[in-house]
Order: sequence, then C-alpha cells, then structure tokens
Amino acid sequence: MFHKIEHVGIAIKNAQLAEPIFNALFNQTPYKKETVESEMVQTIFYKTGSNKIELLQALSEDSAIAKFIEKRGEGIHHIAFAVDDIVAELSRLKKEGFQLINETPKRGADNKLIAFVHPKGTHGVLIELCQEIGDELTLMTGE
Amino acid sequence: MFHKIEHVGIAIKNAQLAEPIFNALFNQTPYKKETVESEMVQTIFYKTGSNKIELLQALSEDSAIAKFIEKRGEGIHHIAFAVDDIVAELSRLKKEGFQLINETPKRGADNKLIAFVHPKGTHGVLIELCQEIGDELTLMTGE
Repeated sequence: MFHKIEHVGIAIKNAQLAEPIFNALFNQTPYKKETVESEMVQTIFYKTGSNKIELLQALSEDSAIAKFIEKRGEGIHHIAFAVDDIVAELSRLKKEGFQLINETPKRGADNKLIAFVHPKGTHGVLIELCQEIGDELTLMTGE
Repeated sequence: MFHKIEHVGIAIKNAQLAEPIFNALFNQTPYKKETVESEMVQTIFYKTGSNKIELLQALSEDSAIAKFIEKRGEGIHHIAFAVDDIVAELSRLKKEGFQLINETPKRGADNKLIAFVHPKGTHGVLIELCQEIGDELTLMTGE
C-alpha cells in the first residue's frame, strides 16, 4: 500500500538560484541538503507537514535530472510514495504489468530504500517508491 | 503556511484508459469523480493517506489541461498545498514577488477554494494553493 506522498521531486538547473525562490515560496529554509553520488545529484529538502519537497540539481550531464531538464525544462520530476515493504510492492507492480526501472531497491537520499517505476506505463508519471531504512534493513543492505 | 501536499494533479488524455492503470498502481478504486465546468475538466481522485492524487482530463480544447498535454504530453501537472488562509498566503506570495495566476481564490474541485501561482516564477512548477470550504467561506462566496 502507498500510505502517503513521501515527497515530490523537482528538477532544477541551479540550486543556488532556486533555493532562495523556494525558501520564499515555502516560507522556510531547507531542513536537509544531501549529495547522492549514485544518482549524480545534489538534493535540497523542505517539509510541508508530513510531506517533503526535494529539489534536484544534476552534478553531471549523465544524470537523469540533466537529461530531463534538457528535454522538458525545469519542473516537477517525480512523485515518491512511502511504502512499508518496497520489495512486496515492486513484486505486486511487476505482476500488474508495470515496467520497473529498478527491479530491486537501491539506496537513495534521506535514509531510504528506493525504486522507480517507468513513466511509459503510468501516463507519463515517474513514480518512486521509498521505504525508510530501519536497523534490520541496514543489516540486509550491509551498510 | 503550507501544511501538507493536498494533492498532485496529473494530466491525462483519456480517463477511461487511465483509470484502470491508476487503479492497479494504487491498488484501489477512486473515491470521487467530479466534473469542474469552470476548468473544463473531468477529475478522478485517489487517496494515499492524507494526500490525494487528482487525474485531470480536458473536456474542451481550450482547457489548460488540453494545452499542457499538447505541449508536454501526459504527466504531472501541478502540486497543490493545503493552506488555512488562502487570501493571506496569496498576499504573502505576491509581496514576495511571485506571479499569481489567480489574484483571488476561485471555487475548485473537491469542495475547495483554490488559486494558482505561475510556474514562470517557481522554476517551472505550477503550484496550487487550496483551502477547504467551511460554512463561513460558503457564505462569503455566496454558494
């Protein structure tokens, strides 16, 4: 079950330019900034209640974010849903016929296991599933 | 203050085709379908915890949704944030220099007062503010 929108990801060209704009929009400063080397992105996080907004700036031209901006410009990039059991959800979605970008979860920003569902099968919407990493999962992934 | 993501709006071409896909994705059926004549859209709502997903199909070529799909294809259209006082938030955002699409709130789907902030000033992100309509507001808007 998807039990909330964990965050919405926004592709931006330049974090230094975007941050003051989003600070003014949300009337707050980011609660976290994190570089995710595996995704080649710099992230900036805001909270609105129990939901988050994640600004994403590419750190390489090979990053999915750089390619997205080249094709579509800056803007909303993906919706991430919180799930309790990401492996079970991926299995369910695969059986339903959805195309998974990640067949198995990988480590993402903000202490999460994440996996993406391809927008081809979801009317153009890039969906991320994410599960908070607890002690047990930390053990499983060996980190 | 934006106190949660109220919903994320998704532009779709054909609700009849999209509904079974999103039913499978969310593992549930919509809790509401509503035509919003003023916006020339058919809406389909899903719940994920306290957040919603709103599918939007244009009912006219003049609808903003039809124009969005023509330009960018199907996909995520906007993020809506819940606010307690939409008039005060619009005033704050205007002072901050954001360009408002709606200077005053209008009636939207799902019993809400809504107003949009132009994506030109927000790095390509179309932002909606929405406030639940209570008895007092129903009186004010004369509905």
